[in-house]
Amino acid sequence: MANRLTRHFSDRAKEMRASEVRELLKLLQVPDMISFAGGLPNPETFPANIIREIANDVLMRDGAQALQYGITEGYAPLREAVAERMRKKGMDVSVENILIVSGSQQVIDLMAKVFIDPKDTVVVTAPTYLTALTGFGAFQATFESIPIDAHNMRMDIFEERIARLAKRANPPEIVYVLPNFQNPAGVTMPEKNRRRLVDLASEYDFIILEDDPYGELRYVGKDIPALKCLDDEGRVVYMSTFSKTLSPGLRVGWVAADPDILKKLIISKQSTDVCTNVLGQRIAHEYVVRGHIDEQIERIKKIYSRKLGIMLRGMDEFMPKGLDWVRPEGGMFLWVTLPEGMDSSELLKSALKKRVAFVSGKAFFADPREGLNTMRLNFTHPSDDLITEGLRRLGSVINQEIVSGWDRPPESVDRKMEEAVKGALIGKS
Amino acid sequence: MANRLTRHFSDRAKEMRASEVRELLKLLQVPDMISFAGGLPNPETFPANIIREIANDVLMRDGAQALQYGITEGYAPLREAVAERMRKKGMDVSVENILIVSGSQQVIDLMAKVFIDPKDTVVVTAPTYLTALTGFGAFQATFESIPIDAHNMRMDIFEERIARLAKRANPPEIVYVLPNFQNPAGVTMPEKNRRRLVDLASEYDFIILEDDPYGELRYVGKDIPALKCLDDEGRVVYMSTFSKTLSPGLRVGWVAADPDILKKLIISKQSTDVCTNVLGQRIAHEYVVRGHIDEQIERIKKIYSRKLGIMLRGMDEFMPKGLDWVRPEGGMFLWVTLPEGMDSSELLKSALKKRVAFVSGKAFFADPREGLNTMRLNFTHPSDDLITEGLRRLGSVINQEIVSGWDRPPESVDRKMEEAVKGALIGKS
Repeated sequence: MANRLTRHFSDRAKEMRASEVRELLKLLQVPDMISFAGGLPNPETFPANIIREIANDVLMRDGAQALQYGITEGYAPLREAVAERMRKKGMDVSVENILIVSGSQQVIDLMAKVFIDPKDTVVVTAPTYLTALTGFGAFQATFESIPIDAHNMRMDIFEERIARLAKRANPPEIVYVLPNFQNPAGVTMPEKNRRRLVDLASEYDFIILEDDPYGELRYVGKDIPALKCLDDEGRVVYMSTFSKTLSPGLRVGWVAADPDILKKLIISKQSTDVCTNVLGQRIAHEYVVRGHIDEQIERIKKIYSRKLGIMLRGMDEFMPKGLDWVRPEGGMFLWVTLPEGMDSSELLKSALKKRVAFVSGKAFFADPREGLNTMRLNFTHPSDDLITEGLRRLGSVINQEIVSGWDRPPESVDRKMEEAVKGALIGKS
Repeated sequence: MANRLTRHFSDRAKEMRASEVRELLKLLQVPDMISFAGGLPNPETFPANIIREIANDVLMRDGAQALQYGITEGYAPLREAVAERMRKKGMDVSVENILIVSGSQQVIDLMAKVFIDPKDTVVVTAPTYLTALTGFGAFQATFESIPIDAHNMRMDIFEERIARLAKRANPPEIVYVLPNFQNPAGVTMPEKNRRRLVDLASEYDFIILEDDPYGELRYVGKDIPALKCLDDEGRVVYMSTFSKTLSPGLRVGWVAADPDILKKLIISKQSTDVCTNVLGQRIAHEYVVRGHIDEQIERIKKIYSRKLGIMLRGMDEFMPKGLDWVRPEGGMFLWVTLPEGMDSSELLKSALKKRVAFVSGKAFFADPREGLNTMRLNFTHPSDDLITEGLRRLGSVINQEIVSGWDRPPESVDRKMEEAVKGALIGKS
């Protein structure tokens, strides 16, 4: 029976796999589990009372509009409020550039619809946001991965690669980057690199998709202009969201784009989900125009920077030598590199037994052979106490793994070292 | 500049056109305009006060959950409540068959992702729901159109066509139907035809997508079992929504499918928009479990059946001879056939001058040469008085068109007559 149904699936559906991260998150309902997995905001930041007041006011004053279909572009006063906030950050946009979306994930879906034919190339960093890979992947995009360093995308490697790719019959359509406190690695692109990237977009004729969900969550250092600030050709499509500053459950995000691109995104959204939920848009709008948002962002930054501090102290205290991690200036994640050859998926099994969870880094790489010895730790969701206790547990698991030696999976170690190790120490594959 | 950006568009994006209906709806902001266009529920039916109370309660009791990300499948108690309502209507489903979506339009997007490769065939009726055409069209589906009569899809023509199509290398994947009070034509499929269609799905191995947004809005006659009630092979994917019974602005709908299909729909939704807005799901759930929904549906049926009565009386009173219309047993639309050769798009221009709007029927046909002399009138949104006044205006515009004669566009007249006319008068092919 199943076969009779499933053989009708499209090629893209046949390639779809349930995300391991997602499956893992289901395990986290176990009591006592301390989770650094997931990417959830801390619910203690949600302004439930203010949202309750606003929902009450909107439904009292204007229920007929708030419960009706909205136009696909989004609630016009919210588009205006979003444009105004972007202008304050130096981006040259007006209401005509803004489309409100059902959470910023939807921008990836709509951008794929508008730009991606099967086998078209999207350039991503390695690692990158997992669900960008699945989102573009659903449209059978091909990925070119550029490694990162502490400054986000390696611009030297990118320049060389794009020069080569540009000569192909089908050069890359989109370069997808998260310049601020990147998910998963927490790294930030310096201004100089941003300027260079925008220049290269013009030189090699590609579109930049700038994903900026965490831009307002900077805990140390100075803000750096968005790529969109540097864009005078309409090549940068900028996306962000209220999920990390107000509430993810409202599913309200936005995209700012050149009008020619925006028009196609709007037509795509029309047949995708008609319009973004109107009550959520109205709540986000009132929250901004009543002047709560900046205060809220300050409140979140205080909580999350405290948590990041606890996290970094815990890492210093509990992690054995041989590990490396990025000290992020903002965002929600700490990116850890384990000793070469250690497989974080294997480590995860031991960690789960000790009731501590994280996400194996390999999920964030377009090439499944990469990132085996990396892991992503979320520091915004666990309580302060649990961060410390979780790192104590995790440190002890990693320590044990190091002491007992670990199986070096052949894909993850340098080939030559692998041969040497095999020959000298273990005598078996 | 524009060209440098737009030439990156995907093949599907190049084919995307802004819907004429949508563009038309923008004109409706003109004062004094009476609109039978659109497909909006009447806001007087929205239970704004109850929703306000529920939103207040949910955010008071459980703000941390209601504002957080939800799982992609949807809020489990809502899935259960939906499954229970479906079981009461004779459908054999449980919570494992249900995915909550961001409005039922999203089901078309997800079904296209899961089933449609470029050039795959979707069988639709002619006419059918406009945004199903654009939704499947965005995935470069090919359409096979089956004419309708007063009993919805012409089963005799369908049987003959499917037998022929099944012999192709790539037979149809999906047959998309709206069995109850179809949008746009208001026609309902009899039980006998439903049974036959489900049997044919098994015989010719296709999936039925049963779109049932209006099934609960029956004003006369007896309910007929859904196709999903007759399905014992998991071939029927059933979709419906809270948009027509509670509020479209909440964007909460659902799909019920065989677990193998549902799994792929869930993975697709994950990378499309992560999850449906949680506050909307919580409101819909409380609204159902607090026992409001059946009372609400009765209230809506009373209002809409009154409006339908006013509409039908107005049609009898104001429409000239030579027009034909379906008397729907439920739903939101009246489908009108104008005299052969009259072009409703042309008529619309005159109508707009007299401050009355409708949707030209041709938008609802996969083949743009069809339906020129048809129009769709919505009767749920205008006030009672405006329905009568609107039909008075529309009747007078049509009358005038008939009296003055109309330009018969060559595409809309009988082919043989066209050939004869061409041959005799023009002397060229």
